[in-house]
Amino acid sequence: MADDLTQTIERRGEAAQDWSAGAAYIDGAVVPLRDAKIPITDWGYRRSDVTYDVVSVYFGAFFRLDDHLRRFRASMEKLRLKPRESNAEIAGILTDLVRRTGLREAYVAMDCLRGRPPAGAPYHPAYSRNYLICFAMPWVWVFTPEQQERGIHAIIAATPRIPAESVDPTAKNFHWGDLTRANFEAHEQGAETAILLDLAGFVTEGPGFNVFAVTNGVVVSPPSGALKGVTRRSVLELCEDLGVPFEVRPIPRAEIEDADEIFFSTTAGGVMPVSRLGSRILGNGRPGPISAKLRETYWEKRRAGWHATPIDYD
Amino acid sequence: MADDLTQTIERRGEAAQDWSAGAAYIDGAVVPLRDAKIPITDWGYRRSDVTYDVVSVYFGAFFRLDDHLRRFRASMEKLRLKPRESNAEIAGILTDLVRRTGLREAYVAMDCLRGRPPAGAPYHPAYSRNYLICFAMPWVWVFTPEQQERGIHAIIAATPRIPAESVDPTAKNFHWGDLTRANFEAHEQGAETAILLDLAGFVTEGPGFNVFAVTNGVVVSPPSGALKGVTRRSVLELCEDLGVPFEVRPIPRAEIEDADEIFFSTTAGGVMPVSRLGSRILGNGRPGPISAKLRETYWEKRRAGWHATPIDYD
Repeated sequence: MADDLTQTIERRGEAAQDWSAGAAYIDGAVVPLRDAKIPITDWGYRRSDVTYDVVSVYFGAFFRLDDHLRRFRASMEKLRLKPRESNAEIAGILTDLVRRTGLREAYVAMDCLRGRPPAGAPYHPAYSRNYLICFAMPWVWVFTPEQQERGIHAIIAATPRIPAESVDPTAKNFHWGDLTRANFEAHEQGAETAILLDLAGFVTEGPGFNVFAVTNGVVVSPPSGALKGVTRRSVLELCEDLGVPFEVRPIPRAEIEDADEIFFSTTAGGVMPVSRLGSRILGNGRPGPISAKLRETYWEKRRAGWHATPIDYD
Repeated sequence: MADDLTQTIERRGEAAQDWSAGAAYIDGAVVPLRDAKIPITDWGYRRSDVTYDVVSVYFGAFFRLDDHLRRFRASMEKLRLKPRESNAEIAGILTDLVRRTGLREAYVAMDCLRGRPPAGAPYHPAYSRNYLICFAMPWVWVFTPEQQERGIHAIIAATPRIPAESVDPTAKNFHWGDLTRANFEAHEQGAETAILLDLAGFVTEGPGFNVFAVTNGVVVSPPSGALKGVTRRSVLELCEDLGVPFEVRPIPRAEIEDADEIFFSTTAGGVMPVSRLGSRILGNGRPGPISAKLRETYWEKRRAGWHATPIDYD
């Protein structure tokens, strides 16, 4: 009886180790996501001195895993962050985390933090020990499938994007103050998100996504002032495959305001059409034909294993 | 015997609860600082969607506690953050934390975080439950007393400060990407810290401090583009007391490069003179007379209870 009870408790303990809500790696330790925490004195939090990347898992496979790892490494180098793990080790960690969760659709993140002010060394970030955090959790739609079907409602924010001279947007970072402010602007105007311009009035990006304008059948994406999105690059590949002409050049405010179609791209959503910009209804208030075609093709190709790194769940 | 043992264990448990290294309050719970952590999925970390303030305790008393609490509340309102605690409650929490540590010299911080993406609500910061973190820990000198005595070595950074249009510097924030980059510039040039200019070439602030230039006996501080420092305001009061003329107006690059004296002000250091700017040695390579006088007077007055809220440690 006592043994039975012990076994029941042990089984309960096992069951309590529930990975399905998310699994995390923190500087060498693997823990359930709900227990994954960082010290409040870490400069990764306290100075937002951190870079990160996010890769998606859909249909049981990573999408462009190597591209994400390469960009993550480049971001770390730009910020002079150096964790002890190699890219091959990070790939192994991410795979292990997804396997633990058993999730076929997962949001998978990797962060490299500056670390704490070092004891007995100058109070300067050059002396901190940097470290890695990774986690896998159930897929998050930044915009729901319903929003994507009817098209997202966006505004052009009054808040300008932080200039690249101050904080390099190509090193993915958590400096979201301008993006969050823009998100509140959108919320006040009954919209769902915002497009930010730079100080000269050209399109940059939005909270978590790259921006595309379509005019007279040509897809246009800004060359700078924004993250070099992996999904953005995938969109340009799709355009090539589909024979849709595209240009990478600055987009002035007037051009996006008058565009025939607008759509966004992001790891956590793929291709996401816009159907309203401020008070203007685009097309017939539904995703435009090129945006819809790109979205459809993106998911068809992903289902078929495009740029996929399958995960062995057994 | 068994009772004695129990009591010994309880006393050990008590002793193990060592507060002297720091005490923290996290959303209602009080824990030793080393156990104070935040979830890696919190937008306070993941979007640096957080504001904070720091108040110093020296000679067993808070300095300008009400001013810090007022500014903290104003910062929270600017970012639409609303914790459940009132200012009176925050004052009580900070006092309790310092008392637990027993520290007569302490660095005391308060953060308000956005919180986690809410379950079952739109994926937007307007729907998160905001919460408070506070902590008290042993005093940290941003620059050591030795550095202050001989004067700090600074440079003018090539990296411009994030413009106020993008992220409001008067709502104290962790968007330190530009400040950290400037700190690395300084490090490479053998200096200890950096002064950042705005995009138009005017002085803003440095990593954690306000900047003052002294020319022909007049102390000058920029009116905008920087945090409204509580210690900065104290410096202006000291100037008034000492009959030192001061001006609050923009400082162009050439003016700071040619200044007779430069000094910084910060909660974690008071008044900190500069003795080198790039390759230029100011005065005789020691703190200038006005900077030195202001620093001396600042500490004399603090010792005498200026703007003090004494802490009852019993």
